[in-house]
Amino acid sequence: MNAPKPDVLVSEVGPRDGLQSVKATMPTADKLRWIDALVAAGLREIEVGSFVPAKLLPQMADVAEVVAHARRHAGLTVMALVPNLRGAQAAVAAGAHKITLPVSVSEAHSLANVRRSPAQMVDELREVVALRAAQAPAMAVEVGLSTAFGCTLQGVVEEDAVIRLAVACAGAGVDEVGLSDTTGMANPAQVRRLFTRLRAELGERAGAAHMHNTRGLGLANCLAAYDVGVRTFDASLGGLGGCPYAPGASGNVVTEDLVFMFEAMGVRTGVDIEALIAARAPLQAGLPGEPVYGMTPEAGLPKGWPLGQTA
Amino acid sequence: MNAPKPDVLVSEVGPRDGLQSVKATMPTADKLRWIDALVAAGLREIEVGSFVPAKLLPQMADVAEVVAHARRHAGLTVMALVPNLRGAQAAVAAGAHKITLPVSVSEAHSLANVRRSPAQMVDELREVVALRAAQAPAMAVEVGLSTAFGCTLQGVVEEDAVIRLAVACAGAGVDEVGLSDTTGMANPAQVRRLFTRLRAELGERAGAAHMHNTRGLGLANCLAAYDVGVRTFDASLGGLGGCPYAPGASGNVVTEDLVFMFEAMGVRTGVDIEALIAARAPLQAGLPGEPVYGMTPEAGLPKGWPLGQTA
Repeated sequence: MNAPKPDVLVSEVGPRDGLQSVKATMPTADKLRWIDALVAAGLREIEVGSFVPAKLLPQMADVAEVVAHARRHAGLTVMALVPNLRGAQAAVAAGAHKITLPVSVSEAHSLANVRRSPAQMVDELREVVALRAAQAPAMAVEVGLSTAFGCTLQGVVEEDAVIRLAVACAGAGVDEVGLSDTTGMANPAQVRRLFTRLRAELGERAGAAHMHNTRGLGLANCLAAYDVGVRTFDASLGGLGGCPYAPGASGNVVTEDLVFMFEAMGVRTGVDIEALIAARAPLQAGLPGEPVYGMTPEAGLPKGWPLGQTA
Repeated sequence: MNAPKPDVLVSEVGPRDGLQSVKATMPTADKLRWIDALVAAGLREIEVGSFVPAKLLPQMADVAEVVAHARRHAGLTVMALVPNLRGAQAAVAAGAHKITLPVSVSEAHSLANVRRSPAQMVDELREVVALRAAQAPAMAVEVGLSTAFGCTLQGVVEEDAVIRLAVACAGAGVDEVGLSDTTGMANPAQVRRLFTRLRAELGERAGAAHMHNTRGLGLANCLAAYDVGVRTFDASLGGLGGCPYAPGASGNVVTEDLVFMFEAMGVRTGVDIEALIAARAPLQAGLPGEPVYGMTPEAGLPKGWPLGQTA
């Protein structure tokens, strides 16, 4: 018997976003065990690393090996972050199923993060899409628009600028454009407005909600995105990570709490929450002493779980 | 010039719910300074204590003095919890503007919390309402339905049972019936269903959402309640408190984060968030060493605050 098709896709970003935000480097063997545990819990898309120079991010030096290992899991979408064409070439060579490029709406953040302006990044996207057409037609190309809800450097980010840049990215030929609350400044009203506009402009190419819990609104913002039709949500096991280039920003949405929220609502994630909580063990084994977060793992599942409620 | 009327009422429960959940007793002078700071931040309703035997809760022995002090603040609704008629008599004598009675939907929790069944509590409500009519016609009487979203003792709580009990409480003559997620088991879909039904049955007598952050869903649940028309929200400064009789339950919604969410959405609370964060100082002075929570106070307000967004 097949399990029912999940209603939402929880995209786990811990092995990339989480690990590149901490100082310690997780040994490769631990990364592989952690990824195996995440897959065993039912996650179907994992951002396993980033293709960046090892000089800049030694935590990601083994990314090709990690991609190769993750590809052995049938049904898993093996995703990697790439900052530019060179990274995309390496991701193609390694066999990533999907790449994601960060394109910042804030000029200041874009220059700090990838040393290119947003317009230069759109040019880069065209080259990445051409590379894909030539060498890896089955590979998906996603963009996450950083600082879409505000920027710690520039402050308010105009919503029109977000939508203009999203349209430009889609015009460059990428498959999906999501919105990232890099700096933890999003609020539910803004999330609803922006994703509603994004979906109106891009239709099926409107992508994931990548929310942070910096000011405690992570789950409320995911709920708001769900309400207006978003069905892919980035999250990080144990809340590991955030954006190291955005001062004061921290705290990805905790995968365990996000899955708990959806499952409690009767929204199927395809994830076994007890196996998910168990996947914290290999994470912690590979990063001794690193704090992990999450209210549901601390409180435990409620009496009577699963609650058998309908959405 | 008058400030615009707030869109929501944030009802601060820290001086009652918070203080009765911790072991230490806050000295009276510190309580008064804390309440003054909360009022200075713009809070218009504060649950300042509970009228229970000092033997059971020595933290609340000074409640009459605290009520008398709080009443000096013009425009403040001075609320107190009372578990029964005897408590209501004491609250009337002290001059509380509003009393709130906890009525648990779960029989097991009700017996553990107030040593009475839900039906016995409805009888008690009738006596409290009669007392009010005879001695304090201006005093408001509110009920908070505990364990409305699940119980750590009994597990699932039937939604029909919640609504039946709410109707019975309204029938006993109370002014408002709110719903409390005593055990941190609520999810946004359930919150929307239950408050929609409550408002359909009780109309203007449908009361506050009292949410806990036990599993990280506190703000998402407040958002869900707001979406279906709830306009009064309980919260506790620094997230102090929870229900000491529900094992494993902890964590009121943090007032600072709730106010941040609403204000960022353009929903006016009437609360000055910087003054609210400053009100943590007298709380901490009066409870040295007690942990306080809150993501917004830790992260700080975002660059460009107030963001000037519209809901």
